[in-house]
Amino acid sequence: MSETNLFESKLELVRSHIRSFPDFPKKGIVFRDVCPILKNPAALAALTDLFEEHVRTSYQQVDLIVGLDARGFLFGPLLAQRLGLGFVLIRKKGKLPGSTTSVTFDLEYGQAEVEIQDDVVDPGQKVLIIDDLLATGGTLCAAWELLKQQQAEVLGCLVVIELLDLQGKNKVKPLPVFSLTHY
Amino acid sequence: MSETNLFESKLELVRSHIRSFPDFPKKGIVFRDVCPILKNPAALAALTDLFEEHVRTSYQQVDLIVGLDARGFLFGPLLAQRLGLGFVLIRKKGKLPGSTTSVTFDLEYGQAEVEIQDDVVDPGQKVLIIDDLLATGGTLCAAWELLKQQQAEVLGCLVVIELLDLQGKNKVKPLPVFSLTHY
Repeated sequence: MSETNLFESKLELVRSHIRSFPDFPKKGIVFRDVCPILKNPAALAALTDLFEEHVRTSYQQVDLIVGLDARGFLFGPLLAQRLGLGFVLIRKKGKLPGSTTSVTFDLEYGQAEVEIQDDVVDPGQKVLIIDDLLATGGTLCAAWELLKQQQAEVLGCLVVIELLDLQGKNKVKPLPVFSLTHY
Repeated sequence: MSETNLFESKLELVRSHIRSFPDFPKKGIVFRDVCPILKNPAALAALTDLFEEHVRTSYQQVDLIVGLDARGFLFGPLLAQRLGLGFVLIRKKGKLPGSTTSVTFDLEYGQAEVEIQDDVVDPGQKVLIIDDLLATGGTLCAAWELLKQQQAEVLGCLVVIELLDLQGKNKVKPLPVFSLTHY
C-alpha cells in the first residue's frame, strides 16, 4: 500500500469508529462519541499512528504532551509513550494536590475552572496539548493560558474531532490545531 | 539482570514516582499522586510492563479492559493496546450518550453515580477493571455491579496504589485485586 493510501485507510478506520448521537447531552446537539475507537484495538493504534506521524513530521522538538481532563487522558499517554515523552495533566479544579494554578473560563451556562500543578512544566519547555474534541475552544483557550502562565511554549494542539460550525480554531488563533476528523 | 531483579527494578521505578501530599484533599488524608509516573516515560512503560505481565501470567483469556473515570483512563488504554484488547469506559453519570445503565454508591459525604453504555460489553465477556487507586472500594464495587448487570464476567481489578488501612479489598471480596504498590 502506498503511504497516502495507508494514511487514508488509517483515517477511515478512525472515522468509522466515531458514533453520532443526536440530542445529547441536550436537544439540538449531535454528540460525537469516540468510545468505539477505544474499544477497537486497531482503530486506537491507527489513531495513535496518525498523531505520532503528525508530530514527527511537524515539529523538530517537543518536550511534553499535555492532556485535558478527562478524554484527553485516553489518547495522551499513548502518544507520549510513542514519542518517548512525558505526559502532564490539566484537570478540573480541585483534583490536583500541591501548589497549582487555575484559570476560569465561560461555558454556555456558568463557568468552569481548569488547573495545573506548578512544578510539572519548566519555563521554555515545548508542549503539545491533546484532547478528544475541539468545540467552541473554551477549554483549550484556558489550557493554553495556564501553560503560558507556566512559561511553557505551546506549539499546538491535537484533537480527534473538530466541530467546524463552532469555529473553535478562530478562538485559539494563532495556535495551530491538528484535527483528525471534522463535522 | 535476572527476571526477579528486573521486576523489582521496574516496581522501584514506579514507586519512586509516586508523590505524597499530606492533608489533601482535606486534613488528615495523605494524597498519593501518580502524576510523576505519567511524566516519566520510563516509569510509565515500567508500570505498563508490570500490568501486562500480571495479566499474561494470571489469565488465560481476557476480552476487554474496563477503565474508571478519570485516572483509570490514564493507564487503561496503554495496557489494552499492549494486550491487543479493546478498552471500555465507566464514567461519572451524564457523560455517556445512548442507552446506559448506572449504579449509585455512597461516598463519605453524599453519593456518586457511575455509568456504562449498554452495548459495549457482550454477555459472558471476560473483563478486567483498571483504576489508579483502591481506597474504600466504593467506586470499584459500583463498577463491578454495573458489569455484572451487563452479564460480563469480571475476572479481577488492577490498581497502581492500594491504601491498606481502608480495607477496600475486603469490600470487593471475592474479586481479586492486583495492586502494584501499598501504603
